[in-house]
Amino acid sequence: MGDPAGIGPEVVLKALNNSKISSMAWFLVIGDYNYLKRVGNSLNLDLNLIRVEYNSNLPHQLEKIKSEKSSEIICLDLANLPESGWQRGQVNKICGQVCVEYIETGADLAGKSIIKAIVTAPISKEAIHQAGCKWPGHTEFLADKAGTKDFAMMLCGKGLRVVLVTTHMALKRVSQSLSTKEIFRKIRLANIWLNQYFNIAKPKIGVCGLNPHCGESGAFGSEEDEFITPALLEAQKQGINAIGPLPADTVFYQAVKGKFDAVVAMYHDQGLGPLKLLAFDEGVNITLGLPFIRTSPDHGTAFDIADEFKADSTSMEQAILTAVSMLEISCSLRKVHERAVLCYCKSSLDY
Amino acid sequence: MGDPAGIGPEVVLKALNNSKISSMAWFLVIGDYNYLKRVGNSLNLDLNLIRVEYNSNLPHQLEKIKSEKSSEIICLDLANLPESGWQRGQVNKICGQVCVEYIETGADLAGKSIIKAIVTAPISKEAIHQAGCKWPGHTEFLADKAGTKDFAMMLCGKGLRVVLVTTHMALKRVSQSLSTKEIFRKIRLANIWLNQYFNIAKPKIGVCGLNPHCGESGAFGSEEDEFITPALLEAQKQGINAIGPLPADTVFYQAVKGKFDAVVAMYHDQGLGPLKLLAFDEGVNITLGLPFIRTSPDHGTAFDIADEFKADSTSMEQAILTAVSMLEISCSLRKVHERAVLCYCKSSLDY
Repeated sequence: MGDPAGIGPEVVLKALNNSKISSMAWFLVIGDYNYLKRVGNSLNLDLNLIRVEYNSNLPHQLEKIKSEKSSEIICLDLANLPESGWQRGQVNKICGQVCVEYIETGADLAGKSIIKAIVTAPISKEAIHQAGCKWPGHTEFLADKAGTKDFAMMLCGKGLRVVLVTTHMALKRVSQSLSTKEIFRKIRLANIWLNQYFNIAKPKIGVCGLNPHCGESGAFGSEEDEFITPALLEAQKQGINAIGPLPADTVFYQAVKGKFDAVVAMYHDQGLGPLKLLAFDEGVNITLGLPFIRTSPDHGTAFDIADEFKADSTSMEQAILTAVSMLEISCSLRKVHERAVLCYCKSSLDY
Repeated sequence: MGDPAGIGPEVVLKALNNSKISSMAWFLVIGDYNYLKRVGNSLNLDLNLIRVEYNSNLPHQLEKIKSEKSSEIICLDLANLPESGWQRGQVNKICGQVCVEYIETGADLAGKSIIKAIVTAPISKEAIHQAGCKWPGHTEFLADKAGTKDFAMMLCGKGLRVVLVTTHMALKRVSQSLSTKEIFRKIRLANIWLNQYFNIAKPKIGVCGLNPHCGESGAFGSEEDEFITPALLEAQKQGINAIGPLPADTVFYQAVKGKFDAVVAMYHDQGLGPLKLLAFDEGVNITLGLPFIRTSPDHGTAFDIADEFKADSTSMEQAILTAVSMLEISCSLRKVHERAVLCYCKSSLDY
C-alpha cells in the first residue's frame, strides 16, 4: 500500500474498487488493515476487505478464500501502523519503517511464489532513509532482496517503452558512468522482457546515442563509438535486433510510429522527458531483471495532495493492468513451451 | 532556396505553390532561377516565377512588381549554380558555395530592410565547410552577419516552444558550459521575442533544471543552485515571469497543458527530444536575438530522398506561416505603440 502518509493507499483502493480490475486476478494488499479501512471510509468506498495474517498458514488461508469466493480483495494485515505519531502529507520515520516491512513481505512472498507479481505503491525516499533503509527506492531494494545486480527500469505509456542505462545521477557524471558492458546488459534485459512478458518474438530495440545528433561522427562527443556501438555489435552478435546509436531527438517519434518496441536511453531525462510528455498520467514503471514481475505507477507519494483524497488512480490502474497482462503472457508462453516439450517427448516416444 | 542538392528548393516551391500561403505576403526566393524552374518542372508545378536581378535597382524593381501584380512569387536570381559538377543528393563544395551566397544576400537585404523576414531552407554543414564557411549553420552565420553574439534557438511546434541554452556540444561538456549570464540571456531573449512577435504580454517561461529531478537538493548535481536559480532570480528581478528550476521530465507536459508559453532547456536533447516527439513533421526553428525575423523548417537537406521529389513541405509551410505571423504581430504592435505616442503628443499639446 506504500507510504501511509502519501496517496498510495488511496490509489490502491480506488484502483481495486474498479470491478473490471478486481475481477482480473486475486489481489493481496500488503499493509495495515485498520488504516486501509479508514482510507476506504474517507473515500466512501464500499470495500469488502478480507483480512489475513502473515504466518506460515498464509498459503492455505489464501487457497481457502479462493475456493470459497469468486473475487475479493484480501488484505495481508501486518498491523504495524500506529494511529498516532505521524501525519498524512508529511515525511515520517514511522511511515518509512512500515513501508520497508511491506516491501520486504512482498519480496518474501514473491520469492516463495506465493504471489506471482508485485505492484508497488509510492514510498518516500526520505522516510525509508530515516528508517535506516539505504536504498534509493523500490527498484534497488527489490533487486537487493532478489540478489541481483543485473536489473533495469523500463517506463511505459501510450505505446512507448523506455529502458534507462543510468538513472538518478548528475548529468555531468553520465558520460563517465557508461560502459559497453552496462549498455549491453540493458539491451539484453529489454530483449528478454519484451519477449517473455510482452510476447514480442523478436523485439526491435532502438538505442539512443549520448550526444546531440549522436555526436556527428565525433564532432561533439565520442561515447557512441567508444561504448554504444560496441554494445550494439555484441547484442546483434547474440541475435538481438538492436538498432543504433540513434539521435535522441528523433528515436522516440519513430518508436511511437511503430519502428521500435522499446528505446534504450542513456540517461534519465533523455528517456523520461519524451515518455512523460506522452503519458504523464498513465506511465507505468517496470523492473526488468527480477525473478518476479514488478510494476508501479510512475508518480510519487504526492504528500501535497494526500489530505484531499482526490488523487488520480489512472497510473496505478495501468500498473496493475500491466502486471496482470505480463503474468498472463508469461504463463501462456510457459504453457505453450511445456506443451511443445510434451509434444516433443511424445513424438520422440513415437519413434 | 537552400542547398540545391537537397530538398530545400523542392519544399520552398511546394510551400509557395499553396495559394493560401503565397497570398499572405510577397515572397522573394533567393536562389538560381533556371534551377528553380527545373525543380518546378520535376514537381509538375505550374509556377509563374518572376525573375529579378540582384543590383542597386532591386527595391524599385520590387515596388514596380508589387504595384502591377496582386501576388506573385519573385525569384531573386543569383544565377550562380552551374548545370554540372554536382549531383542531387550529394555533398558538394559548389552547392555549399552557392548556399553561402544565398544566405549572405538574404542577410544583406534584411539588414537594409528590403526584406522583413528570412525563412531559410536547409543547407549541408559539410558543403558550406568545404566552401570555406566556418559556421556550423544558418543561426551562427546570420548572427555573425548581424554582428550579435546574444542570440538563441527557439524550436516550436504543436503549441510547445523550446529555447536552448546550449546546442551542438558533447553532453559531458554541457555542465561546464553553463553560466548564470548565459542562462539569463536566453530567458531574457525568450521573454522579448514572445512579447514582441507572439503578442504575449507577460510570457510565462518555465526553466529546466540540468539534472534528473533538478538534482534532488544537491543529491545528484548542484548546477541548479550554482547557475540556474541565480539566473532565474535576476530574470525575476527584471520583471520576467520565469519559473524554475523545473524537472525536465514534467515541464514539457505542463507547457503543453498551458502552464508555460515557452520552456528554456539547458541542452539540445533535453529540449528537442520532447519537442520532436510532439511536432516531428511540423517543427519550426526561430532565431531569437537577430535584428530581423528568421525562421526555418526543423529538418535537414535530406539528401537520401532528394532525388525522389516526395519531400513533405509541412515544416517549411509552418516556418513561412510563423514568419508571416511574427511579422504581422510585430508591425501591429509597432503601430499601436506609434498611435499611443501620437495620442500622448496630441494630449500634451492640448494642455
